[in-house]
Amino acid sequence: MTIKRHDPSDILSKAVEANGFVFLAGIVAGDPTVGVKEQTRDVVGQIDALLAKCGTDKSKIVQAQIWVPDIKLRAEMNVVWKEWNGGKDLPARACVEAKLADPRLLVEIMVTAAK
Amino acid sequence: MTIKRHDPSDILSKAVEANGFVFLAGIVAGDPTVGVKEQTRDVVGQIDALLAKCGTDKSKIVQAQIWVPDIKLRAEMNVVWKEWNGGKDLPARACVEAKLADPRLLVEIMVTAAK
Amino acid sequence: MTIKRHDPSDILSKAVEANGFVFLAGIVAGDPTVGVKEQTRDVVGQIDALLAKCGTDKSKIVQAQIWVPDIKLRAEMNVVWKEWNGGKDLPARACVEAKLADPRLLVEIMVTAAK
Repeated sequence: MTIKRHDPSDILSKAVEANGFVFLAGIVAGDPTVGVKEQTRDVVGQIDALLAKCGTDKSKIVQAQIWVPDIKLRAEMNVVWKEWNGGKDLPARACVEAKLADPRLLVEIMVTAAK
Repeated sequence: MTIKRHDPSDILSKAVEANGFVFLAGIVAGDPTVGVKEQTRDVVGQIDALLAKCGTDKSKIVQAQIWVPDIKLRAEMNVVWKEWNGGKDLPARACVEAKLADPRLLVEIMVTAAK
Repeated sequence: MTIKRHDPSDILSKAVEANGFVFLAGIVAGDPTVGVKEQTRDVVGQIDALLAKCGTDKSKIVQAQIWVPDIKLRAEMNVVWKEWNGGKDLPARACVEAKLADPRLLVEIMVTAAK
Protein backbone atom coordinates (compact mmCIF):
# COMPACT_ATOMS: atom_id res chain seq x y z
CA MET A 1 0.00 0.00 0.00
CA THR A 2 1.40 3.37 -1.04
CA ILE A 3 -0.02 6.80 -0.31
CA LYS A 4 0.58 9.71 -2.68
CA ARG A 5 0.04 13.27 -1.46
CA HIS A 6 -0.31 16.31 -3.73
CA ASP A 7 -0.11 20.10 -3.27
CA PRO A 8 0.69 20.29 0.45
CA SER A 9 0.19 23.55 2.38
CA ASP A 10 1.33 23.95 5.99
CA ILE A 11 -1.78 22.19 7.33
CA LEU A 12 -3.17 19.86 4.63
CA SER A 13 -2.64 18.13 1.29
CA LYS A 14 -5.03 19.18 -1.43
CA ALA A 15 -5.27 15.55 -2.65
CA VAL A 16 -4.31 12.15 -1.26
CA GLU A 17 -4.32 8.83 -3.17
CA ALA A 18 -4.63 5.49 -1.35
CA ASN A 19 -6.12 2.05 -2.02
CA GLY A 20 -7.96 2.96 -5.20
CA PHE A 21 -9.45 6.18 -3.87
CA VAL A 22 -8.56 9.86 -4.14
CA PHE A 23 -9.44 12.10 -1.18
CA LEU A 24 -9.58 15.83 -1.84
CA ALA A 25 -9.42 18.58 0.75
CA GLY A 26 -12.32 20.96 1.25
CA ILE A 27 -11.76 23.32 -1.68
CA VAL A 28 -12.65 27.02 -1.53
CA ALA A 29 -12.45 29.80 -4.10
CA GLY A 30 -9.14 31.57 -4.69
CA ASP A 31 -10.99 34.91 -4.79
CA PRO A 32 -13.45 35.19 -1.88
CA THR A 33 -14.83 38.56 -3.06
CA VAL A 34 -17.00 37.19 -5.89
CA GLY A 35 -20.50 35.72 -5.68
CA VAL A 36 -21.46 32.15 -4.89
CA LYS A 37 -21.81 31.10 -8.53
CA GLU A 38 -18.37 32.42 -9.43
CA GLN A 39 -16.89 30.85 -6.31
CA THR A 40 -18.49 27.50 -7.15
CA ARG A 41 -17.09 27.66 -10.71
CA ASP A 42 -13.63 28.30 -9.27
CA VAL A 43 -14.00 25.40 -6.80
CA VAL A 44 -15.13 22.81 -9.35
CA GLY A 45 -12.34 23.95 -11.67
CA GLN A 46 -9.81 23.30 -8.91
CA ILE A 47 -11.42 19.91 -8.24
CA ASP A 48 -11.13 18.96 -11.94
CA ALA A 49 -7.44 19.91 -11.91
CA LEU A 50 -6.67 17.99 -8.70
CA LEU A 51 -8.50 14.87 -9.90
CA ALA A 52 -6.55 15.02 -13.19
CA LYS A 53 -3.30 15.22 -11.24
CA CYS A 54 -4.35 11.99 -9.47
CA GLY A 55 -5.25 10.20 -12.72
CA THR A 56 -9.01 10.33 -12.29
CA ASP A 57 -11.87 12.72 -13.14
CA LYS A 58 -15.30 13.96 -12.11
CA SER A 59 -17.04 10.92 -13.63
CA LYS A 60 -15.52 8.85 -10.80
CA ILE A 61 -16.49 11.01 -7.81
CA VAL A 62 -18.28 8.78 -5.30
CA GLN A 63 -19.06 11.19 -2.47
CA ALA A 64 -19.24 14.96 -2.02
CA GLN A 65 -19.74 17.19 0.98
CA ILE A 66 -20.73 20.79 0.46
CA TRP A 67 -20.84 23.56 3.04
CA VAL A 68 -22.42 26.97 2.51
CA PRO A 69 -22.42 29.68 5.22
CA ASP A 70 -26.11 30.40 4.54
CA ILE A 71 -28.28 27.49 3.42
CA LYS A 72 -30.14 29.91 1.11
CA LEU A 73 -27.00 29.92 -1.09
CA ARG A 74 -27.61 26.25 -1.90
CA ALA A 75 -29.90 27.01 -4.86
CA GLU A 76 -27.37 29.22 -6.66
CA MET A 77 -24.53 26.81 -5.91
CA ASN A 78 -26.65 23.99 -7.37
CA VAL A 79 -27.00 25.86 -10.67
CA VAL A 80 -23.24 25.69 -11.19
CA TRP A 81 -23.06 22.18 -9.72
CA LYS A 82 -25.50 20.98 -12.42
CA GLU A 83 -23.70 22.90 -15.19
CA TRP A 84 -20.52 21.13 -14.07
CA ASN A 85 -21.68 17.53 -13.91
CA GLY A 86 -24.43 17.78 -16.52
CA GLY A 87 -26.59 15.37 -14.54
CA LYS A 88 -24.17 12.51 -15.26
CA ASP A 89 -22.23 10.24 -12.90
CA LEU A 90 -23.66 11.97 -9.84
CA PRO A 91 -21.99 11.27 -6.48
CA ALA A 92 -23.64 10.64 -3.13
CA ARG A 93 -23.82 14.11 -1.61
CA ALA A 94 -24.68 16.09 1.50
CA CYS A 95 -24.96 19.90 1.65
CA VAL A 96 -25.37 21.64 5.00
CA GLU A 97 -24.86 25.12 6.44
CA ALA A 98 -21.59 25.94 8.20
CA LYS A 99 -19.43 29.00 8.68
CA LEU A 100 -16.14 28.69 6.79
CA ALA A 101 -12.58 29.80 7.55
CA ASP A 102 -13.03 33.22 5.89
CA PRO A 103 -16.43 34.94 6.33
CA ARG A 104 -16.37 35.99 2.65
CA LEU A 105 -16.21 32.36 1.44
CA LEU A 106 -19.63 31.24 0.16
CA VAL A 107 -18.98 27.57 -0.63
CA GLU A 108 -16.57 24.75 0.26
CA ILE A 109 -16.66 21.35 -1.47
CA MET A 110 -14.81 18.17 -0.44
CA VAL A 111 -15.00 15.11 -2.70
CA THR A 112 -13.83 11.50 -2.70
CA ALA A 113 -13.27 9.78 -6.06
CA ALA A 114 -12.41 6.27 -7.16
CA LYS A 115 -9.52 5.78 -9.57
CA MET B 1 -12.76 -0.78 -11.32
CA THR B 2 -16.47 -0.23 -11.91
CA ILE B 3 -18.73 2.31 -10.22
CA LYS B 4 -22.44 1.62 -9.79
CA ARG B 5 -24.79 4.51 -9.09
CA HIS B 6 -28.34 4.11 -7.76
CA ASP B 7 -31.43 6.35 -7.52
CA PRO B 8 -30.14 9.51 -9.19
CA SER B 9 -31.93 12.84 -8.73
CA ASP B 10 -30.93 15.97 -10.66
CA ILE B 11 -28.05 16.70 -8.25
CA LEU B 12 -26.92 13.45 -6.59
CA SER B 13 -27.07 9.67 -6.51
CA LYS B 14 -28.62 8.19 -3.39
CA ALA B 15 -26.00 5.39 -3.36
CA VAL B 16 -22.69 4.77 -5.13
CA GLU B 17 -20.71 1.49 -5.12
CA ALA B 18 -16.94 1.45 -5.74
CA ASN B 19 -13.91 -0.59 -4.64
CA GLY B 20 -15.69 -2.59 -1.94
CA PHE B 21 -17.50 0.36 -0.40
CA VAL B 22 -20.99 1.81 -0.66
CA PHE B 23 -21.36 5.59 -0.24
CA LEU B 24 -24.83 6.87 0.58
CA ALA B 25 -26.06 10.43 0.18
CA GLY B 26 -27.15 12.45 3.19
CA ILE B 27 -30.64 11.03 3.71
CA VAL B 28 -33.54 13.11 5.05
CA ALA B 29 -37.12 12.25 5.90
CA GLY B 30 -39.72 12.12 3.13
CA ASP B 31 -42.17 13.97 5.39
CA PRO B 32 -40.51 16.97 7.05
CA THR B 33 -43.58 17.83 9.14
CA VAL B 34 -43.19 15.05 11.73
CA GLY B 35 -40.98 15.02 14.84
CA VAL B 36 -37.31 14.08 15.05
CA LYS B 37 -37.97 10.49 16.15
CA GLU B 38 -40.35 9.87 13.26
CA GLN B 39 -37.95 11.55 10.84
CA THR B 40 -35.06 9.41 12.11
CA ARG B 41 -37.15 6.24 11.67
CA ASP B 42 -37.89 7.26 8.09
CA VAL B 43 -34.21 8.00 7.42
CA VAL B 44 -32.86 4.71 8.77
CA GLY B 45 -35.56 2.86 6.84
CA GLN B 46 -34.38 4.51 3.63
CA ILE B 47 -30.77 3.67 4.52
CA ASP B 48 -31.69 0.00 5.03
CA ALA B 49 -33.40 -0.07 1.62
CA LEU B 50 -30.49 1.62 -0.18
CA LEU B 51 -27.91 -0.67 1.43
CA ALA B 52 -30.00 -3.71 0.40
CA LYS B 53 -30.08 -2.42 -3.17
CA CYS B 54 -26.25 -2.35 -3.07
CA GLY B 55 -25.98 -5.87 -1.65
CA THR B 56 -24.96 -4.89 1.86
CA ASP B 57 -26.70 -4.02 5.15
CA LYS B 58 -26.46 -2.01 8.36
CA SER B 59 -24.11 -4.54 9.98
CA LYS B 60 -21.42 -3.38 7.51
CA ILE B 61 -21.69 0.41 8.02
CA VAL B 62 -18.21 1.71 8.79
CA GLN B 63 -18.80 5.45 9.19
CA ALA B 64 -21.79 7.73 9.78
CA GLN B 65 -22.24 11.48 9.83
CA ILE B 66 -25.33 12.96 11.41
CA TRP B 67 -26.50 16.56 11.26
CA VAL B 68 -29.28 18.01 13.40
CA PRO B 69 -30.38 21.66 13.10
CA ASP B 70 -30.41 22.00 16.91
CA ILE B 71 -27.89 19.93 18.84
CA LYS B 72 -30.55 19.41 21.55
CA LEU B 73 -32.33 17.06 19.10
CA ARG B 74 -29.38 14.65 19.35
CA ALA B 75 -30.81 12.85 22.40
CA GLU B 76 -34.14 12.00 20.73
CA MET B 77 -32.42 11.05 17.48
CA ASN B 78 -30.15 8.72 19.48
CA VAL B 79 -33.16 6.85 20.91
CA VAL B 80 -34.18 5.76 17.41
CA TRP B 81 -30.53 5.26 16.36
CA LYS B 82 -30.12 2.75 19.20
CA GLU B 83 -33.45 1.03 18.44
CA TRP B 84 -32.23 0.63 14.86
CA ASN B 85 -28.77 -0.83 15.43
CA GLY B 86 -29.50 -2.53 18.75
CA GLY B 87 -26.01 -1.69 19.99
CA LYS B 88 -24.48 -4.09 17.44
CA ASP B 89 -21.93 -3.48 14.68
CA LEU B 90 -21.68 0.21 15.52
CA PRO B 91 -19.97 2.51 12.99
CA ALA B 92 -17.52 5.29 13.66
CA ARG B 93 -19.76 8.36 13.93
CA ALA B 94 -19.85 12.12 14.27
CA CYS B 95 -22.98 14.16 15.04
CA VAL B 96 -22.85 17.96 14.85
CA GLU B 97 -25.32 20.84 14.49
CA ALA B 98 -26.04 22.25 11.04
CA LYS B 99 -28.97 23.86 9.27
CA LEU B 100 -30.36 21.59 6.54
CA ALA B 101 -31.84 22.26 3.10
CA ASP B 102 -35.41 22.59 4.43
CA PRO B 103 -35.86 24.32 7.83
CA ARG B 104 -38.43 21.68 8.84
CA LEU B 105 -35.92 18.83 8.47
CA LEU B 106 -34.70 17.69 11.90
CA VAL B 107 -32.05 15.11 10.96
CA GLU B 108 -29.82 14.12 8.03
CA ILE B 109 -27.67 10.97 8.06
CA MET B 110 -24.91 10.01 5.59
CA VAL B 111 -23.27 6.58 5.89
CA THR B 112 -20.46 4.64 4.26
CA ALA B 113 -20.63 0.82 4.33
CA ALA B 114 -18.33 -1.99 3.27
CA LYS B 115 -19.70 -4.70 1.04
CA MET C 1 -14.06 -8.94 3.61
CA THR C 2 -13.91 -8.63 7.39
CA ILE C 3 -14.77 -5.61 9.53
CA LYS C 4 -13.07 -5.03 12.88
CA ARG C 5 -14.65 -2.65 15.37
CA HIS C 6 -12.84 -1.16 18.37
CA ASP C 7 -13.90 0.59 21.59
CA PRO C 8 -17.68 0.54 21.21
CA SER C 9 -19.90 2.84 23.29
CA ASP C 10 -23.70 2.58 23.26
CA ILE C 11 -23.96 4.56 20.01
CA LEU C 12 -20.68 4.22 18.06
CA SER C 13 -17.37 2.43 17.64
CA LYS C 14 -14.31 4.62 18.15
CA ALA C 15 -12.54 2.88 15.23
CA VAL C 16 -13.61 0.55 12.40
CA GLU C 17 -11.28 -1.35 10.04
CA ALA C 18 -12.45 -2.46 6.57
CA ASN C 19 -10.94 -2.97 3.10
CA GLY C 20 -7.56 -1.38 3.86
CA PHE C 21 -8.96 1.66 5.62
CA VAL C 22 -9.47 2.67 9.25
CA PHE C 23 -12.44 4.96 10.01
CA LEU C 24 -12.31 6.81 13.31
CA ALA C 25 -15.25 8.41 15.10
CA GLY C 26 -15.37 12.14 15.70
CA ILE C 27 -13.05 12.41 18.71
CA VAL C 28 -13.54 15.01 21.44
CA ALA C 29 -11.53 15.85 24.55
CA GLY C 30 -12.04 13.81 27.71
CA ASP C 31 -11.99 17.03 29.76
CA PRO C 32 -14.23 19.69 28.16
CA THR C 33 -13.26 22.36 30.72
CA VAL C 34 -9.82 23.15 29.30
CA GLY C 35 -8.94 25.46 26.39
CA VAL C 36 -8.93 24.63 22.70
CA LYS C 37 -5.19 23.90 22.56
CA GLU C 38 -5.38 21.48 25.46
CA GLN C 39 -8.50 19.86 24.01
CA THR C 40 -6.81 19.47 20.62
CA ARG C 41 -3.76 17.85 22.28
CA ASP C 42 -6.08 15.40 24.03
CA VAL C 43 -7.92 14.63 20.77
CA VAL C 44 -4.80 13.96 18.67
CA GLY C 45 -3.42 11.80 21.48
CA GLN C 46 -6.59 9.69 21.38
CA ILE C 47 -6.35 9.50 17.57
CA ASP C 48 -2.74 8.26 17.82
CA ALA C 49 -3.79 5.56 20.29
CA LEU C 50 -6.77 4.42 18.19
CA LEU C 51 -4.72 4.28 14.99
CA ALA C 52 -2.06 2.21 16.81
CA LYS C 53 -4.76 -0.20 17.98
CA CYS C 54 -5.71 -0.65 14.29
CA GLY C 55 -2.11 -1.22 13.16
CA THR C 56 -1.62 2.13 11.47
CA ASP C 57 -0.45 5.63 12.42
CA LYS C 58 -0.79 9.35 11.68
CA SER C 59 1.54 9.13 8.66
CA LYS C 60 -1.22 7.19 6.90
CA ILE C 61 -4.17 9.53 7.54
CA VAL C 62 -5.81 10.31 4.21
CA GLN C 63 -8.69 12.58 5.21
CA ALA C 64 -9.64 14.66 8.25
CA GLN C 65 -12.73 16.62 9.19
CA ILE C 66 -12.54 19.16 11.97
CA TRP C 67 -15.40 20.99 13.64
CA VAL C 68 -15.02 23.94 15.98
CA PRO C 69 -18.02 25.66 17.62
CA ASP C 70 -16.57 29.10 16.75
CA ILE C 71 -14.53 29.38 13.56
CA LYS C 72 -12.22 31.81 15.37
CA LEU C 73 -10.88 28.82 17.34
CA ARG C 74 -9.41 27.43 14.12
CA ALA C 75 -6.14 29.35 14.48
CA GLU C 76 -5.36 28.01 17.95
CA MET C 77 -6.41 24.50 16.98
CA ASN C 78 -4.07 24.71 13.99
CA VAL C 79 -1.10 25.46 16.24
CA VAL C 80 -1.49 22.08 17.92
CA TRP C 81 -2.43 20.40 14.62
CA LYS C 82 0.92 21.53 13.17
CA GLU C 83 2.86 20.52 16.32
CA TRP C 84 1.29 17.09 15.97
CA ASN C 85 1.95 16.33 12.32
CA GLY C 86 5.09 18.43 11.95
CA GLY C 87 4.07 19.40 8.41
CA LYS C 88 4.61 15.80 7.24
CA ASP C 89 2.22 13.36 5.56
CA LEU C 90 -0.63 15.86 5.65
CA PRO C 91 -4.16 14.57 4.96
CA ALA C 92 -6.86 16.14 2.84
CA ARG C 93 -8.80 18.23 5.35
CA ALA C 94 -11.86 20.38 5.88
CA CYS C 95 -12.51 22.51 8.98
CA VAL C 96 -15.89 24.21 9.46
CA GLU C 97 -17.92 25.69 12.31
CA ALA C 98 -20.51 23.53 14.06
CA LYS C 99 -21.96 23.26 17.54
CA LEU C 100 -20.90 20.02 19.23
CA ALA C 101 -22.68 17.61 21.59
CA ASP C 102 -21.48 19.45 24.74
CA PRO C 103 -21.33 23.27 24.56
CA ARG C 104 -17.98 23.22 26.40
CA LEU C 105 -16.31 21.13 23.67
CA LEU C 106 -14.08 23.32 21.50
CA VAL C 107 -12.93 20.84 18.83
CA GLU C 108 -13.95 17.51 17.27
CA ILE C 109 -11.76 15.66 14.77
CA MET C 110 -12.72 12.66 12.61
CA VAL C 111 -10.05 10.98 10.48
CA THR C 112 -9.81 8.20 7.91
CA ALA C 113 -6.46 6.40 7.52
CA ALA C 114 -5.10 3.78 5.18
CA LYS C 115 -3.43 0.71 6.64
